[in-house]
Amino acid sequence: MNQYINENKDRFLSELLDLLRIPSVSADSKFAGDVRKAAEFICQKLSDAGADLAEICETAGHPIVFGQKIIDPALPTVLVYGHYDVQPADPYELWDSPPFEPVVKDEKIFARGACDDKGQVYMHIKAFETMVATNSLSCNVKFMIEGEEEVGSDNLGIFVSANKEKLAADVVLISDTAIIANDIPSIDVGLRGLSYLEVEVTAANRDLHSGVYGGAVANPINVLSKMIASLHDEDNRITIPNFYADVVELTPEERAAMALTPFSLDAYKEDLGIDEVVGEKGYTTLERASIRPTLDANGIWGGYIGEGAKTVLPSKAFAKISMRLVPNQKSEVITDLFTKHLQAIAPAGVTVKVRPHHGGEPYVTPIDSKEYRAAERAMEEAFGKKPVPTRGGGSIPIVALFEKELGLKTILMGFGLDSDAIHSPNEHYGLFNFYKGIETIPLFFKYYSETN
Amino acid sequence: MNQYINENKDRFLSELLDLLRIPSVSADSKFAGDVRKAAEFICQKLSDAGADLAEICETAGHPIVFGQKIIDPALPTVLVYGHYDVQPADPYELWDSPPFEPVVKDEKIFARGACDDKGQVYMHIKAFETMVATNSLSCNVKFMIEGEEEVGSDNLGIFVSANKEKLAADVVLISDTAIIANDIPSIDVGLRGLSYLEVEVTAANRDLHSGVYGGAVANPINVLSKMIASLHDEDNRITIPNFYADVVELTPEERAAMALTPFSLDAYKEDLGIDEVVGEKGYTTLERASIRPTLDANGIWGGYIGEGAKTVLPSKAFAKISMRLVPNQKSEVITDLFTKHLQAIAPAGVTVKVRPHHGGEPYVTPIDSKEYRAAERAMEEAFGKKPVPTRGGGSIPIVALFEKELGLKTILMGFGLDSDAIHSPNEHYGLFNFYKGIETIPLFFKYYSETN
Repeated sequence: MNQYINENKDRFLSELLDLLRIPSVSADSKFAGDVRKAAEFICQKLSDAGADLAEICETAGHPIVFGQKIIDPALPTVLVYGHYDVQPADPYELWDSPPFEPVVKDEKIFARGACDDKGQVYMHIKAFETMVATNSLSCNVKFMIEGEEEVGSDNLGIFVSANKEKLAADVVLISDTAIIANDIPSIDVGLRGLSYLEVEVTAANRDLHSGVYGGAVANPINVLSKMIASLHDEDNRITIPNFYADVVELTPEERAAMALTPFSLDAYKEDLGIDEVVGEKGYTTLERASIRPTLDANGIWGGYIGEGAKTVLPSKAFAKISMRLVPNQKSEVITDLFTKHLQAIAPAGVTVKVRPHHGGEPYVTPIDSKEYRAAERAMEEAFGKKPVPTRGGGSIPIVALFEKELGLKTILMGFGLDSDAIHSPNEHYGLFNFYKGIETIPLFFKYYSETN
Repeated sequence: MNQYINENKDRFLSELLDLLRIPSVSADSKFAGDVRKAAEFICQKLSDAGADLAEICETAGHPIVFGQKIIDPALPTVLVYGHYDVQPADPYELWDSPPFEPVVKDEKIFARGACDDKGQVYMHIKAFETMVATNSLSCNVKFMIEGEEEVGSDNLGIFVSANKEKLAADVVLISDTAIIANDIPSIDVGLRGLSYLEVEVTAANRDLHSGVYGGAVANPINVLSKMIASLHDEDNRITIPNFYADVVELTPEERAAMALTPFSLDAYKEDLGIDEVVGEKGYTTLERASIRPTLDANGIWGGYIGEGAKTVLPSKAFAKISMRLVPNQKSEVITDLFTKHLQAIAPAGVTVKVRPHHGGEPYVTPIDSKEYRAAERAMEEAFGKKPVPTRGGGSIPIVALFEKELGLKTILMGFGLDSDAIHSPNEHYGLFNFYKGIETIPLFFKYYSETN
C-alpha cells in the first residue's frame, strides 16, 4: 500500500489543492454556490476512488455527500465523517497568501481548510482509493461528509435521524482533531460541548450624538461591556448561577495522569507571544483547555468602527459569546442558564435580547474499547510510537448525536497540530501529516476488521 | 430684507440641496474628492453672494474656505465660522432615504449634514447675500468654513495661528448648535470639551480557535469589556483617578436657574424609546448632559462580527472612547490621565495601546457681553420671544482656540433642534429653522453694529 501512496503522492496533493481553491465558507450566504461546488468535488472523487454509490443529499441548508462501498455485509462497517465547509477567512489582510489560493511552503500547505477539515477529509478519500486499488479494503465503508460543521451541523442531525438504516455501521471514524506533535502521536478521547449565543443590547431607539446625550442616556457598549465583565469572577470562574452544577470533576488520579502529557508552558507562551497565561484558578493550562468549561466572547461590535472618530452614542451593541462544555453539562441547559442570567443582570435603560446560535454536547471515548485499540495499533505502527490519549478542548457536536441516534462510538483519529492555525489566518497542514494520515487510516481498517 | 428672503426662498433651498448632495465625509479618506467639491461649492457661493474675496486655503488635510467683504475698516467685523464636512452616514440601512439624496418631507430637509452643519452654514451665506442685495450689510464680515470639524479640526488650529491678521475680527459667530424648541429660542453659552481616544487590546499574536485555547489564554474582548466596565462606579461616576479634580461645580443658585429651563423628562424618554434615564448620581438629566463630564464608548469591535457563528478567540479588540469635559478640565490633561489609567489597569496576558484621536477645550460665553445682548435682541425680534441661555453638551473645540489665538469671544447662535438626529440616520433640518436663521442673522449684524 505504501508503494501505491508513494507513486501517487503528487496527484493526491494536487487534487487536495484543487479542493482548497473552492471557498466553501458555510457561514456566509454569498459563498453558497462554492459550498455546493465543494460537495460536488467530494462526491466525484469518492466515485473515482471506487465507491459503489456516491451521491449529494439535499438538506434545508448545504448538502451532505454520502458514499459507500459494501464489500461483504458480514464484515464490519466503518462510517467516516468529515466536513468540506470551512471557517470564514477574514481578516484577509493577515494572510501571507490568499486563503483560497493554496501554496506549499516549508513542507506545509497554506490555505483555509488545509487542516480543518478538507485536508483531513481528503486523506480518507485517498486512503480509500489506496485500499481499493491495492485490493486491501478489509471492511465495508460509508462516507458522510457534510457542509455545515462550522455553523452547527443543524441539518446533519435531521439527516442522521431520517437515515438510520443508510448510515448503519459499527464505528464512526473522524479526522478533525490534532496530535500533540509529529513525534508524539495522540488520540482525542474527549471533546467539549458548545453553547453559542448572540447578545443584543438596545438603549435609545436611534444612534445619538454623544455630546448631546452622553452621560444622560444608557450607552449599550458600556452596558454590554459591564455584562460581559461580570460573567467571570476574580478567579476567572464563570458567575452564571448553576453553571458548574453538572460538571464532572476529575479524580486526583485522573488529573495526575493528565499531567503526564508532554507540554511546555514556555513553548506555549512563546508560540502565542504572550507573557502570561490566564484562566480558571486552581487548574493547569492543559486542564483549562480540555476538562474545564469556559466562556469566551468570540465577537463584539457596536457604534462607529470605521476610520477616524465619530462622536456617536449608539443605539445598539452586540456580542457573540460561546461556552465550551464538559461532561455532563448539557448544551440546552447551559443555553437556558445563560439566557436567563443575561436577562436578570440587564440594567434599567436598556433591553437585552439573547439568541442561541448552536450547541453541541461534550463526549468521552472509552479507551478500553476494540475501536480505540485498533486506532492505537494503527498509529503505533505508522508513527513508531504508541499514541497518548488526550482530552481536546474543541467541539464536534455531531459525535454525541452519533451515539444517541446511531448507537455508535466514535474514534477521533486526527492528524493536525495545534499550531496549524485552524480558524485563523495562515491556516496550514503539514505534508508529513497529510501523507501520514493516508498511511495510518488503512491500518485502522485492517486492525479494526481483525478485532471484530 | 424679509421680502428678499421670501422672493428667493425656493432658490435658497434648492442650492442647499445641491450642497447636501456632496458626500463630504471628512473621516473617511475615500470621500476626499467630495470634501474638496463641497469646499469649491461654498467658495463659489460666497463669491456669488457678494464677497470681495473668496478663496480655498490648502491645509495638510481638507481645505478651509475663506471669504470676506470689508465695507469700512472703521466698522466692526464679524467672523463667521462653520464647517462643510459631515459625519459618516453609516449605518446606511437605517436611513429612510439615502443620506446624500436630500428630500423635503413634513417641512423638513432629510440628509446627512442637513443641520450639522451645511444647513446652518448655508443660512449665513444666504443671509449675507440678502444683506448685500438689500444694501443693508452693517458690519464687515469674514467667513472661515472648514472641512475637518468632524475629525477634530487639527489643521484649522494651525491655519488660525498662521493667519491672525487675515482673521482679525471683533466677534465670532457660529451656528452649529440647537434651540430648545421652535417656540423656545435659546442661545448656547457653554460647550463641553472633548478627549477622544482609541484603545487596542492584544492578547495572543494571532486569532486562535476558541475550543483549543479558550479558557487558557486571555480573551481581548473579555479584557476590554472589563476595562470599560471598570471606568464607571456604581453611581456612574468616572473612576479615573483625578478625573474630577479640575471640574467647576455650579453653585446651588446656578443649578436652580438651570432647573428653570423648559424640559419634560417624559417627553425625552418617549422620544428616545427608553424606560429609564441613566447617568451620574445626584444630577438631573439636563445637568448630566451639559455641566457634568462624561465617558462613553463610541465604538467597539473585535473577533468575528459577520453573519453566523465563528468560534474564534481573537488576537485583538478595539474601542473608541470619548470623554466630554467641562470647565476647567483640560483635554490634554484628561487624555493623559485616561492613557495612564488604562495602562495601569491592563491585566497580565495582554498589551494595551491607547492612541489619542482629538480633543478640545470646554468654553463658557459671558451673558452680560454686548455680543450676547445683540444675539439676544436678534432672536427676540425674529422669534417674538426672548431666548434662554443654555449650556450645551456638545463640543466645538475651535471655540476655545479662537479665544486663545485671536482673543475673540464666540456667539453660538444655532437654529437646530436636539431632535434633528445629527450624527444619526435620518438627520434632518426644519425649513422653519433654515429660514428663521436667514432672517435672524442680519438682525444680529444690525444690533451688533449698533452697540459698537
